[in-house]
Amino acid sequence: MTHGSAGDLPAAARPSGLIVTGPPRAEARHVDALRGYGVATVHEAMGRTGCLGPGLRPVQQDVRIAGTAVTALCWPGDNLMIHAAVEQCAEGDILVVATTSPSTDGMFGELFATALHHRGVRGLVIDAGVRDTAELRAMGFPVWSAAVCAQGTVKATAGSVNVPVVVGGQWIRPGDVILADDDGVMCVPRESAATAVEAAKARTAKEEATRAAFAEGQLGLDRYGLRETLARLGVRYQPYGEYAEHAEYAEGARGGAVS
Amino acid sequence: MTHGSAGDLPAAARPSGLIVTGPPRAEARHVDALRGYGVATVHEAMGRTGCLGPGLRPVQQDVRIAGTAVTALCWPGDNLMIHAAVEQCAEGDILVVATTSPSTDGMFGELFATALHHRGVRGLVIDAGVRDTAELRAMGFPVWSAAVCAQGTVKATAGSVNVPVVVGGQWIRPGDVILADDDGVMCVPRESAATAVEAAKARTAKEEATRAAFAEGQLGLDRYGLRETLARLGVRYQPYGEYAEHAEYAEGARGGAVS
Amino acid sequence: MTHGSAGDLPAAARPSGLIVTGPPRAEARHVDALRGYGVATVHEAMGRTGCLGPGLRPVQQDVRIAGTAVTALCWPGDNLMIHAAVEQCAEGDILVVATTSPSTDGMFGELFATALHHRGVRGLVIDAGVRDTAELRAMGFPVWSAAVCAQGTVKATAGSVNVPVVVGGQWIRPGDVILADDDGVMCVPRESAATAVEAAKARTAKEEATRAAFAEGQLGLDRYGLRETLARLGVRYQPYGEYAEHAEYAEGARGGAVS
Amino acid sequence: MTHGSAGDLPAAARPSGLIVTGPPRAEARHVDALRGYGVATVHEAMGRTGCLGPGLRPVQQDVRIAGTAVTALCWPGDNLMIHAAVEQCAEGDILVVATTSPSTDGMFGELFATALHHRGVRGLVIDAGVRDTAELRAMGFPVWSAAVCAQGTVKATAGSVNVPVVVGGQWIRPGDVILADDDGVMCVPRESAATAVEAAKARTAKEEATRAAFAEGQLGLDRYGLRETLARLGVRYQPYGEYAEHAEYAEGARGGAVS
Amino acid sequence: MTHGSAGDLPAAARPSGLIVTGPPRAEARHVDALRGYGVATVHEAMGRTGCLGPGLRPVQQDVRIAGTAVTALCWPGDNLMIHAAVEQCAEGDILVVATTSPSTDGMFGELFATALHHRGVRGLVIDAGVRDTAELRAMGFPVWSAAVCAQGTVKATAGSVNVPVVVGGQWIRPGDVILADDDGVMCVPRESAATAVEAAKARTAKEEATRAAFAEGQLGLDRYGLRETLARLGVRYQPYGEYAEHAEYAEGARGGAVS
Amino acid sequence: MTHGSAGDLPAAARPSGLIVTGPPRAEARHVDALRGYGVATVHEAMGRTGCLGPGLRPVQQDVRIAGTAVTALCWPGDNLMIHAAVEQCAEGDILVVATTSPSTDGMFGELFATALHHRGVRGLVIDAGVRDTAELRAMGFPVWSAAVCAQGTVKATAGSVNVPVVVGGQWIRPGDVILADDDGVMCVPRESAATAVEAAKARTAKEEATRAAFAEGQLGLDRYGLRETLARLGVRYQPYGEYAEHAEYAEGARGGAVS
Repeated sequence: MTHGSAGDLPAAARPSGLIVTGPPRAEARHVDALRGYGVATVHEAMGRTGCLGPGLRPVQQDVRIAGTAVTALCWPGDNLMIHAAVEQCAEGDILVVATTSPSTDGMFGELFATALHHRGVRGLVIDAGVRDTAELRAMGFPVWSAAVCAQGTVKATAGSVNVPVVVGGQWIRPGDVILADDDGVMCVPRESAATAVEAAKARTAKEEATRAAFAEGQLGLDRYGLRETLARLGVRYQPYGEYAEHAEYAEGARGGAVS
Repeated sequence: MTHGSAGDLPAAARPSGLIVTGPPRAEARHVDALRGYGVATVHEAMGRTGCLGPGLRPVQQDVRIAGTAVTALCWPGDNLMIHAAVEQCAEGDILVVATTSPSTDGMFGELFATALHHRGVRGLVIDAGVRDTAELRAMGFPVWSAAVCAQGTVKATAGSVNVPVVVGGQWIRPGDVILADDDGVMCVPRESAATAVEAAKARTAKEEATRAAFAEGQLGLDRYGLRETLARLGVRYQPYGEYAEHAEYAEGARGGAVS
Repeated sequence: MTHGSAGDLPAAARPSGLIVTGPPRAEARHVDALRGYGVATVHEAMGRTGCLGPGLRPVQQDVRIAGTAVTALCWPGDNLMIHAAVEQCAEGDILVVATTSPSTDGMFGELFATALHHRGVRGLVIDAGVRDTAELRAMGFPVWSAAVCAQGTVKATAGSVNVPVVVGGQWIRPGDVILADDDGVMCVPRESAATAVEAAKARTAKEEATRAAFAEGQLGLDRYGLRETLARLGVRYQPYGEYAEHAEYAEGARGGAVS
Repeated sequence: MTHGSAGDLPAAARPSGLIVTGPPRAEARHVDALRGYGVATVHEAMGRTGCLGPGLRPVQQDVRIAGTAVTALCWPGDNLMIHAAVEQCAEGDILVVATTSPSTDGMFGELFATALHHRGVRGLVIDAGVRDTAELRAMGFPVWSAAVCAQGTVKATAGSVNVPVVVGGQWIRPGDVILADDDGVMCVPRESAATAVEAAKARTAKEEATRAAFAEGQLGLDRYGLRETLARLGVRYQPYGEYAEHAEYAEGARGGAVS
Repeated sequence: MTHGSAGDLPAAARPSGLIVTGPPRAEARHVDALRGYGVATVHEAMGRTGCLGPGLRPVQQDVRIAGTAVTALCWPGDNLMIHAAVEQCAEGDILVVATTSPSTDGMFGELFATALHHRGVRGLVIDAGVRDTAELRAMGFPVWSAAVCAQGTVKATAGSVNVPVVVGGQWIRPGDVILADDDGVMCVPRESAATAVEAAKARTAKEEATRAAFAEGQLGLDRYGLRETLARLGVRYQPYGEYAEHAEYAEGARGGAVS
Repeated sequence: MTHGSAGDLPAAARPSGLIVTGPPRAEARHVDALRGYGVATVHEAMGRTGCLGPGLRPVQQDVRIAGTAVTALCWPGDNLMIHAAVEQCAEGDILVVATTSPSTDGMFGELFATALHHRGVRGLVIDAGVRDTAELRAMGFPVWSAAVCAQGTVKATAGSVNVPVVVGGQWIRPGDVILADDDGVMCVPRESAATAVEAAKARTAKEEATRAAFAEGQLGLDRYGLRETLARLGVRYQPYGEYAEHAEYAEGARGGAVS
């Protein structure tokens, strides 16, 4: 069952090979406002949603970007659809590249970045490898990737542009807001961009108050009412001397939990 | 920015904690027809789409199931929402469990399987751990999981039931068709179930003809017209003696590609 | 700073290279009683403690053992200390092998199993590789390991026997109870063996009642009072029609949590 | 620097895309003799060389094969060169498939196995994924792979056949002996096949004597003269009571080594 | 066997949920003296013990810290016990966070760092994720973690503070010395702090002499007497011309070992 | 079958333990010319060959080196053969270290770097761990490694120097050219060094022209004639409005491919 060819398929099941043009994008003012907040803050503000996880890491440090997604879905070892995606990119976009199966190949480098920079694209998020990383840093073109690898790719197999893709366990549609910094990458649905700005603003205000309180020595236990939580869960306090006398030897590493 | 509480959020950004009831399901006759075909065949027939990848493995051997998805989205280390999902399961369903961040905990065991078996549920697909695997095999309740682990979980944190989830890089909605066998798991969108049956049937017929031809010695090179492909790509044939004389020492492991 | 030799060290800091003889062991009647319960049950009964995680897998199926730990701490690529440990093993023991850094080498095979079988040892738990797996299954000598690999080892570097070791994130002392089955491996501190038997017995009785109730259709939501938990956490129920109309597109995969 | 095309290259640097025909093969009588010994035994007999490591696992249990390698080097996500390799396979061969970058795709299934079976090929070793595993077991066509996955592949990019490849860190040339069983896969250079038979025979005789001695209670410490090794390395014996009194708390997990 | 609740357990087996107060700490003068030496040096000086392995990486560069451990054991996806641990932290401590099962969630960020900085805490070692990494660097609060990830956590499940925990395969008790730099993290038992200072001092002196000798061209072969070791192990020297004539083709990658 | 000793083996199968002296090296003028080009460029210029993959990462940033390989094959946890290799290193070499099974131990540190620097060695490539990374950066001795870890090693087991080794799936012989920068490491066979210089020069010229064109807005689709490729593969363009009306819900993440 290994030898498929598109000719086998009823029309309805043929692979897409589709380039969608002109998708709706989140409003620029909301995108730009979100850039003012970090990924962790907006992720929390949006109810702890949208985080692409620990697998996508920046090739540079201390850079934060926000933009609207243009998506490319590529075959492993093949960057043909990135070429097609470049044409669909506009000022303020971020290119988001997924592959149909896991890959670490270096599908993207400084020539692509040159082309995207010309179009006003703000950066790249890629669930595969990149290369020319020194040049990318020198150019100031920011990249978050699953790998850094010099391995080159071909341009032989169809894929799609501006269809929804999954990266880091998140469903990303063209036009959604991508926010990326040193903590990783997150996605805000384009319909929620305004909400996200409002929520991030509220959260930041609250965080500032907390930061000030913590800087003066208040404890989270008190600020968040967690002493009651601990009591409700039956967590006990015990002086070390008493503990050392009675505790089982290996309590810690085998420590359980109630809830 | 670590200390979130739901009270911080504008209403629109509050976490869902949602149990959706009565989602549409693919038609039973299509689901049952798909069970007649393996995952690899239906995946190919659907244009090489829907495969959940190598990370979900069966705890049993030589079992194939098809059913409609009931989804549960759980917090890591917490199986509360599986309890909520059980109530939403009906005859012919397959329970699909995702977690909001990666986890290997044993969230599911034979007591859950007993409850699901009572409701006519056909199996479990879980992007985390399971336990009681010997008992599950003895019961005949099939499971595909990301891990096997005895580690237990709590029931303390909200999640959702019957919302779309991502497992193995695939977007799975309640009511979609889940097909699983020794090769792994795939998802067919509920709207495409009839198409998938038709496509799988056509592909199987074609595969049977190919199998017969291959069993008698025909080559894929000839059956699929691949000799022309090789020629077009510039692949050369060379007798070993000539190759050994002229070839560079390490050509193979460093072998490149054209396309 | 790479070139150490033991001569550099003050006496107190010299590496141990220690073989401890005659450690206390959990009582045989408790060990044998624990064998009647699965790893998942005893782990839960002990407050969700002691689980060695998903990384140690059996090379056979449907086997459960319980015994007292004899520990060996080896250098990677070196099985010298397993030879020393064999002599310390007695009837009813389980050999537990750790390495000082991660290794997948096949440090143990059927000759070792022959020697251990002669001494009444019940099985092996090893945080590295094993080989001769077909022969081990044929002999009925059960093994849980981090890898299966034919790669052989040398006998050149010191280690220790019957000192505490860490395997799978658990602190294991000689004489502790090791329990292993298809769900993995767990450790019960030797002082807690009697407690574990009592707790496992109580839990099993409760599980039996639950199993009977679930088999007749009772829900965990009702049996465990979880409907109140869901309500307290603000989880809402919503019919699909209403949800499809109002829900944001990607609620699921981005689903957050409150607690 | 991402956009390569073969036209860029001086002739000498063009990618190979080479199918080598008629490579020398190890003598059949040596290959068949090696099949009488397990991977672990031959690996030891050959000075602990040739092991492909823990990453290649069988899809079946209790099967051992030996044969001569026909190699295929494929692009990730592409099985074109497996079709070309089938034609180069003869009675007694084992097909060895490598990819130019890491891949888990299911490049091989039962149709390929049907074609290879017709040619008298003894099995497959593949540093990527396979599918149709239930059918492969039913056919009795043995496979060792890096993954099991239904994901299909295309036939679009050139590679090579019967050039040296690297799998599992081993350099494998066409005609080398491949030996595979439940412990994994190993490679014996074709020139060393006769030596390997002789060495395996000698080692097996020695192992049989050791097995008999161990079965009667002799220790490896005595049989291999390891008591002197332990003494030379400064390993001390200490009764538990004395140890518990003086030993540092955490000696084990932090245990060092001298040599 | 999945549905545990604390009510099932005999008192002795109830999960701990324990906060131990006032544990003994290594003496400050020893801790501060150790800060003068790197992790690699002290690890060697202590007989190659205490290293937490390659999995814990710094989020900053060129920073070294030493301090006394305050430990927190958390449920995955839950940072409640970090709040409890903050209160137990004092001047000169390092917070060490473990989870009961593997997790990459961002459990710690700059608000926690603000609170800890106020208390004179010197850094964080966490076997899970962190976030706000740019802010942490800007603050000068050093962190070693298993992941960087924005994913947030809840505060719902009990755990423990100042019980022994396992991180990176090492058993860490409250009050033990933690030493961390660009090479990773190590632990010195609190009772061994004085010994470690002495041993590190001796080793450093020796290293300085070696460094001077190496800088002038002396070889390790001569300085450490390794020419005899090589001879004893039977290692031969051979000029390339002779080797190329007689050596087997693939001797290297398949190279074995004697000892 | 675990207990091997060299005495078991026929002479021909004895492990090598071989130090090859005076291997041929690529010409210095070619090596130095290659240093002018990045890894990604030379890899592409050589037909996409020679890349060691994403697993070897630099401990420093923005450094590029080229040199001739001196190889060392070590036992895991043992750096004896690195000492032997130092003596074989000369001006312009790069030390390449492999282990016979996977290891993350810190086998190399600043004392070794001091010795190598004295000999004019340009850097280290190691398929295991390194330590003293801060000191290595301060010295300006560049390193590419599979891990950073303080764990020390012994000097007890034989290996080889200047035999071919496999690192990152590439076959590397002494005297081959090693090129390393922020994108990783590659190997050029010593016989191909002149070709590689010529090919890299040609490719760089072409890249410069492409860079200029892209900077002015030309698209890869046009420059490389890819519009025809897309058309031949059946890739369609569709305005978003039309797509949203007719497209199946989840086309993207499940997107297939034709070729």
